[in-house]
Amino acid sequence: MKKFTTIHDIENLSKTIQEAIALKANPFQYDTLGKHKTLVLLFFNSSLRTRLSTEKAAKKLGMDVMILNINNTWNLEFKDGTIMNLQTAEHVKEAAQVISQYADIIAVRAFPNLKNKEEDASEYVLKSFMKYATVPIVNMESATAHPLQALTDAITITETATKKRPKVVLTWAPHPKALPHAVANSFVKTMQALDVDFSITNPEGYDLSLDITKNTPISHDQEEALKNADIVYVKNWSSYNQYGQVLHQDPNWMITQEKIGSASCMHCLPVRRNVVIEDAVLDSENSIVIQQANNRTFAAQIVLKTLLEHL
Amino acid sequence: MKKFTTIHDIENLSKTIQEAIALKANPFQYDTLGKHKTLVLLFFNSSLRTRLSTEKAAKKLGMDVMILNINNTWNLEFKDGTIMNLQTAEHVKEAAQVISQYADIIAVRAFPNLKNKEEDASEYVLKSFMKYATVPIVNMESATAHPLQALTDAITITETATKKRPKVVLTWAPHPKALPHAVANSFVKTMQALDVDFSITNPEGYDLSLDITKNTPISHDQEEALKNADIVYVKNWSSYNQYGQVLHQDPNWMITQEKIGSASCMHCLPVRRNVVIEDAVLDSENSIVIQQANNRTFAAQIVLKTLLEHL
Amino acid sequence: MKKFTTIHDIENLSKTIQEAIALKANPFQYDTLGKHKTLVLLFFNSSLRTRLSTEKAAKKLGMDVMILNINNTWNLEFKDGTIMNLQTAEHVKEAAQVISQYADIIAVRAFPNLKNKEEDASEYVLKSFMKYATVPIVNMESATAHPLQALTDAITITETATKKRPKVVLTWAPHPKALPHAVANSFVKTMQALDVDFSITNPEGYDLSLDITKNTPISHDQEEALKNADIVYVKNWSSYNQYGQVLHQDPNWMITQEKIGSASCMHCLPVRRNVVIEDAVLDSENSIVIQQANNRTFAAQIVLKTLLEHL
Repeated sequence: MKKFTTIHDIENLSKTIQEAIALKANPFQYDTLGKHKTLVLLFFNSSLRTRLSTEKAAKKLGMDVMILNINNTWNLEFKDGTIMNLQTAEHVKEAAQVISQYADIIAVRAFPNLKNKEEDASEYVLKSFMKYATVPIVNMESATAHPLQALTDAITITETATKKRPKVVLTWAPHPKALPHAVANSFVKTMQALDVDFSITNPEGYDLSLDITKNTPISHDQEEALKNADIVYVKNWSSYNQYGQVLHQDPNWMITQEKIGSASCMHCLPVRRNVVIEDAVLDSENSIVIQQANNRTFAAQIVLKTLLEHL
Repeated sequence: MKKFTTIHDIENLSKTIQEAIALKANPFQYDTLGKHKTLVLLFFNSSLRTRLSTEKAAKKLGMDVMILNINNTWNLEFKDGTIMNLQTAEHVKEAAQVISQYADIIAVRAFPNLKNKEEDASEYVLKSFMKYATVPIVNMESATAHPLQALTDAITITETATKKRPKVVLTWAPHPKALPHAVANSFVKTMQALDVDFSITNPEGYDLSLDITKNTPISHDQEEALKNADIVYVKNWSSYNQYGQVLHQDPNWMITQEKIGSASCMHCLPVRRNVVIEDAVLDSENSIVIQQANNRTFAAQIVLKTLLEHL
Repeated sequence: MKKFTTIHDIENLSKTIQEAIALKANPFQYDTLGKHKTLVLLFFNSSLRTRLSTEKAAKKLGMDVMILNINNTWNLEFKDGTIMNLQTAEHVKEAAQVISQYADIIAVRAFPNLKNKEEDASEYVLKSFMKYATVPIVNMESATAHPLQALTDAITITETATKKRPKVVLTWAPHPKALPHAVANSFVKTMQALDVDFSITNPEGYDLSLDITKNTPISHDQEEALKNADIVYVKNWSSYNQYGQVLHQDPNWMITQEKIGSASCMHCLPVRRNVVIEDAVLDSENSIVIQQANNRTFAAQIVLKTLLEHL
């Protein structure tokens, strides 16, 4: 593995999941693998779980970690040939090459703006770093993908499933703000690669990109979709067709104890209580969201370990 | 010790002070105690001394340190049962549990708003982390308490005192802004637990909470109170009765060389020169504020060491 | 060496350059020299290259690194005797002494305001830390000097030069914003100390301070100046005489492939493409800006190593 920007960069997903579970049982077994190696975390957007879990994973491997929060303080130019006499102070060509001088691996977080579908789909921030950096790139959530979360989710489902081919349902739930599709996209791609009975349910107008969902069944009837589910993965996203719009926040789509039944409930967090999922679910034993958050560390650790082994 | 949120969490204060002084003489003697252990520092407010001294203390013990500056970027919900469809993006129930997955110890700084006495007294931020986190919590200054500072002060007084039962006076001094009671509160509680001749002096209207001061003598006559003092601890705080108000900034209460005489002068810093304490004092040998700031490291180190030993 | 605030703090520049080049070949040979030593990086202004390269250099030496971004959150008082009842919350006297309690070396970045020539020339921020800190100070770019960059540049020129006494030309280039003189100043002082054929070219009105340039030839004819250059160092700066003004942004001064010929092109970065230097140069093999950025680490490392050896 030479980079980790999509879940498909993992050559053998099942094997990697098992390795991550083994690592969780013995998290310091590779604590000198990363000695004298530096991970730079580059945040164009704020982060809690991704930041802490990735930093922790790297330190468990003995790496040095340097963190740069970019936000609005550093305006990068991404277009070729521009006369840079306005707002942008540095071209990503230089930025990515320069950071590569200080890093053995670079991890990047850059959200979509949710205004221009083509621009977001182009993944110009992540792709520019992939193009110009001279070291491996890790995606810490880009415009359209969050593979570290998806690997985490696959680990958590593997730990949780009590039968072969569990029924896993990804359900949309309401949210007051327009959210990206990245988590849902990567979850869908990952479930398609695992031996699970997978389907998606969301209101009309909220279908994800067909390039992502492909043959995965999509139901607009949540009640029907959740029947006999073993694992319910809850997530809001804004409309893909009416790009980036909040069409409605129908509270009937909130996940309740009645809907969840005996299934396990997953969410990538942060979760707005009593909007996305009701208290009764999150406070019950059905909720495995904390275990899921914990697995972020081991997903990051197995990815970094694999990259370090191929440096 | 399973947490350090108040000075009373220390079982044997005198013994802990002596241990801290011994640690100061040999600060790296436990430099592998914290190996593979992670301290997360969570700042809801900015910090210089607390940040640097706590980070340094942890690293001296061989811990990994991860720092998260929250400020306004991450709105936590603290109330139960809320329908979270407004400003708050994550409930402290999840936040505290999640950070506990990445940390062996969590340290939290969260100042009061000084507008609502009951809300500040409830210590809802600190108490929520204590309730929901599954690892020990360290208070890096909460709404009403700053026990790391108070332990520092006890160490400094022990180092400085040249006689048994020194006379220690906590004196209010003027300041243009409304400041919290946390430092003063914790100092009072700590002095009450040590073998010192302790009293407080402040203008009328500035008495601290009776729940804190209890039987400690309070004088409204600074000159009288400072007579024959061995150690003068200077600090501003806003009114407690007229909660959070700056009633006046009477310059007659500024600490001068004449007032301090031969006593040692302490302040937790930052200090506004020639408003709280005049230059002549801070630039004299009577001032032990730098030594005091240095002891922040050893207070934090002894607290973290004790917590690590009880993990 | 007891501090590194100007390039002249280096006793033997040629020897230090050779040591840095040797260190680059074997960067971890002193990886325990800084054990139990702490470097505090203090940023009054934002930073990418300086931050990452200095942090990395320190970690390669086994140091602990603590980073404090100050910006507008911490208003320091620099004047003596002030009654601090307005905006400033802490005097640099305390700040520098306190941070010295937590650090074995302090590195400071503080840009000029470019409004008041005398104030900037006084270097009051850097000099205050030099005066009051009790540990060595490293200049990470001050109002008028950037010696870590200049040492980097000297290393890069030494690596690049294919003949004795290469012709090195520092040329001004246009930029839309008013930039400091620090990089240019330190570069000039460093070239004056090396065995190079050095000259400066800039438009009329843009001459650097005579205190810096001394006997170095200055030409206002860029074409003439660049003839037969081996190394062209490109940099914008605002006017020194009409202090801090952008007199014009004459595009005829942009560096083009035609102007550069077979010379190597250097720039400290960030660089505005097609304003300061055209794409054709930056994308050609003549550009050594990335190698130059990489050398930031080794400049910082040799400086920190030397300071550690003299602690």
